[in-house]
Amino acid sequence: MFVLGIDPGLTRTGYGIVDVRGGGERFVMAGVIRTDPARSVGSRLVELRDDVLGVLGDYAVDAAAIEQVFVNRNRNTAMAVARASGVIMATIASRGIEVAEYSPSQMKMTITGSGSADKDQIAAVVAMRLGLPSVEGPADVADALGVAMCHGQHAFIQSASGAS
Amino acid sequence: MFVLGIDPGLTRTGYGIVDVRGGGERFVMAGVIRTDPARSVGSRLVELRDDVLGVLGDYAVDAAAIEQVFVNRNRNTAMAVARASGVIMATIASRGIEVAEYSPSQMKMTITGSGSADKDQIAAVVAMRLGLPSVEGPADVADALGVAMCHGQHAFIQSASGAS
Repeated sequence: MFVLGIDPGLTRTGYGIVDVRGGGERFVMAGVIRTDPARSVGSRLVELRDDVLGVLGDYAVDAAAIEQVFVNRNRNTAMAVARASGVIMATIASRGIEVAEYSPSQMKMTITGSGSADKDQIAAVVAMRLGLPSVEGPADVADALGVAMCHGQHAFIQSASGAS
Repeated sequence: MFVLGIDPGLTRTGYGIVDVRGGGERFVMAGVIRTDPARSVGSRLVELRDDVLGVLGDYAVDAAAIEQVFVNRNRNTAMAVARASGVIMATIASRGIEVAEYSPSQMKMTITGSGSADKDQIAAVVAMRLGLPSVEGPADVADALGVAMCHGQHAFIQSASGAS
């Protein structure tokens, strides 16, 4: 099952695909979508939508999961992230793919066993589990892969308990 | 100039079109888009996108304006509104139409002269200026028309000072 994970942002969206099966997890691809801060918010959201459509066109994604927006720090940033997140969810859902949501602490807990793991710890566990020397790119990429793995794990547990 | 105004929400989005010209403002149409709370957030955002595309297909909109999300009360509600707002902005921008943003107090100030006008006062001024007996539907509709009129007024002032 190809699971697409997303760490949303207007300036920078991390994404990654993990193939989750009974036999283990496999890294498929990952990357970052950046939009031009000099352009209007509307144009940047369209750019983001088009780039997500590009990923969905290139890979046969079965399921998707997105990291929930965290509203503690800057409210304007949180609003921009939520807008980006809405556009990404609508884009994925428009292709008939369900989008699950996980809070940052749920993802950390599922992947590392600690809800307060820091960025480096997440990246280290993601790299270890996927058999990569390291996760390339900004922390958003490791977070996106983490969300994909978190969803894959939950979906796998659910299907296993449903089958018993 | 047909200006589309939007008061965004995931559960309820108010929208309205006002024709703004040197000769005055004219009411064109207004309504509410509702999405089914029983469905997933992704599906609801797709529903919202499709309904906005429907409005843009039926009317030759020249410009658009959206009310900014206000993050004081419930954070989860604010996040849902921001997501809806992102989808609406991307949908309108994908048609090559610029989307301006106004805070609730900017809109109130521009329309009523008071940044703290209440819902009833906004609805009363909108109805009076557009020559309607009253604004039908929930307060979101009057707010949407108010945002359209606010943008029309700003755009008109700008073009007038640009021409002088």
